[in-house]
Amino acid sequence: MPAPWITYRPELKVLDCTIRDGGLVNNHHFDDDFVRALYQTCAAAGIDYMEIGYRNSKKIFAPGKHGKWMFCEEDDIRRIIGDEPPGVKLSVMIDAGKSDWRTDIPPKSQSIVDMVRVAFYAHQVSEAVEMIKHAADCGYEVSANLMAVSRNTETEIDQVLELLVETPAQVLVVVDSFGSLYMEQVELLVKKYLAFARPKGKEVGIHTHNNQQLAFANTIEAIIHGASRLDASMGGLGRGAGNCPMELLLGFLRNPKFKIRYVYEFLEKYIEPLRQKWEWGPYPQYYITGQLNLHPRAAIEARSSDRKNCYVEFYDRVSTDI
Amino acid sequence: MPAPWITYRPELKVLDCTIRDGGLVNNHHFDDDFVRALYQTCAAAGIDYMEIGYRNSKKIFAPGKHGKWMFCEEDDIRRIIGDEPPGVKLSVMIDAGKSDWRTDIPPKSQSIVDMVRVAFYAHQVSEAVEMIKHAADCGYEVSANLMAVSRNTETEIDQVLELLVETPAQVLVVVDSFGSLYMEQVELLVKKYLAFARPKGKEVGIHTHNNQQLAFANTIEAIIHGASRLDASMGGLGRGAGNCPMELLLGFLRNPKFKIRYVYEFLEKYIEPLRQKWEWGPYPQYYITGQLNLHPRAAIEARSSDRKNCYVEFYDRVSTDI
Repeated sequence: MPAPWITYRPELKVLDCTIRDGGLVNNHHFDDDFVRALYQTCAAAGIDYMEIGYRNSKKIFAPGKHGKWMFCEEDDIRRIIGDEPPGVKLSVMIDAGKSDWRTDIPPKSQSIVDMVRVAFYAHQVSEAVEMIKHAADCGYEVSANLMAVSRNTETEIDQVLELLVETPAQVLVVVDSFGSLYMEQVELLVKKYLAFARPKGKEVGIHTHNNQQLAFANTIEAIIHGASRLDASMGGLGRGAGNCPMELLLGFLRNPKFKIRYVYEFLEKYIEPLRQKWEWGPYPQYYITGQLNLHPRAAIEARSSDRKNCYVEFYDRVSTDI
Repeated sequence: MPAPWITYRPELKVLDCTIRDGGLVNNHHFDDDFVRALYQTCAAAGIDYMEIGYRNSKKIFAPGKHGKWMFCEEDDIRRIIGDEPPGVKLSVMIDAGKSDWRTDIPPKSQSIVDMVRVAFYAHQVSEAVEMIKHAADCGYEVSANLMAVSRNTETEIDQVLELLVETPAQVLVVVDSFGSLYMEQVELLVKKYLAFARPKGKEVGIHTHNNQQLAFANTIEAIIHGASRLDASMGGLGRGAGNCPMELLLGFLRNPKFKIRYVYEFLEKYIEPLRQKWEWGPYPQYYITGQLNLHPRAAIEARSSDRKNCYVEFYDRVSTDI
């Protein structure tokens, strides 16, 4: 029984978050060649946005310690991408509480960046609203990304959404930071976000983590229920268990503008070599933190220790942390 | 937002297919210690069935070349499991066209096996019906497993189901041999199987492969739509991209009889060491054959060659095979 759909929804837009979320694996130390090749791949593959990193505070994060894609200075972006033909929109993420957004987000006329994504936890929503207004006033497209929504109650989420719909953010993203959501929860959340977003002409997005091998499935589920902004990364490169793999997402989407072959080319040349240096992907420790709806911090630590295969010890330790 | 369900459906039954489907990875060469430890794990973890292998033909498969779990002789099973306390039902699989089922399936009174699962392709349904009748006449529980259903049309599937509902098979399993089904297709198939099965008092099962990282998601989807017999394997061990990982499935089910800690113990002691010898799991070649709804044969060959990271070459070769 072949797939029961052969058409596509033209409004679906894909954002590559390889550098931004993958930067949480290698502390943002991607070399210029990698970033340029990724941009060229996104352009050739028909990907709509590329998130090139964070624009976070140099006071909080020491530039010597963190790679340059923690800061995404305009000069760095232009040096690498400025000469490439346009076609892929560029995005940067700013973190509530960790970015000097009042001074580091210049007017759009001075920037090569197209979109600013504002990442925040529920208790930071008041700052997030200011960040969104500032970025929109500066002339950027703006996305509001409430992180770790799996840890919020329905009432908290409602309160955040009530505030966000009054801001100029064009996109509200369902973010499963802990990789703990099952598809039924994604359905409920996407429907809730849409109920707030649609009357205001806003779109809903989805950002998943692969702790329970559900990143791709949850992305499909979000699409089915009306999300139109989709995050994915090459080879799933992203914090801990990683994100929805771009190569799986593009294989599912039926829009002929997407050319998956370029993605496989990038995987072969650029992602496979990284696996010799850094680890990401769904391993048992991530299953466990995902099942328990915990931050993956403890799992990341365990995976980088010499007891990475001691699952029971890890299970016993974290299952008391709920 | 925690999971919206805290209860469980007591009728859900889990079958461990580690030895049977995993035997397709290592040519059925599991040592006795492994099989016994798996049985003990299944018993401790509350798993309902353990499929200990195939009972296929020694005329077709040379015993010297294939491990003993290709044949599952009663003496082998009894030597390993006979002294263990009962609690887990045992299953063997027989393949249409590849088993001497008329002579190799003794009356149940002479066997330690509880269930016989009959695997067949659509064109073999007539033999499958005879196999099912024979196994039921001998006194076993019987399951009918139409393989590679993703390659059949709706009309073909209807014809197979019309025949199966007239047999004594108690379970009809949706089998995604190629790992190519998306959740929406699983929903359609489970509903179709149930429409035939329920009026006859039969149950529906699900057996998934992880080619597109959807084995767990598709198993959840099948549960939601009414499947009650669930296949999974330890660490996802199974042909090619593997099966639904048991550790993910038990983390999702809420029945307190399931004890996931024993599964992590088995993974640590018995599955991790296997990864040094054999490869299984969702790699890009499996993504590609899954997306194209192809048998994983070519992907398995590519993964065992020295060109295992040459994704584009593989993509170019198989994308002309549709």
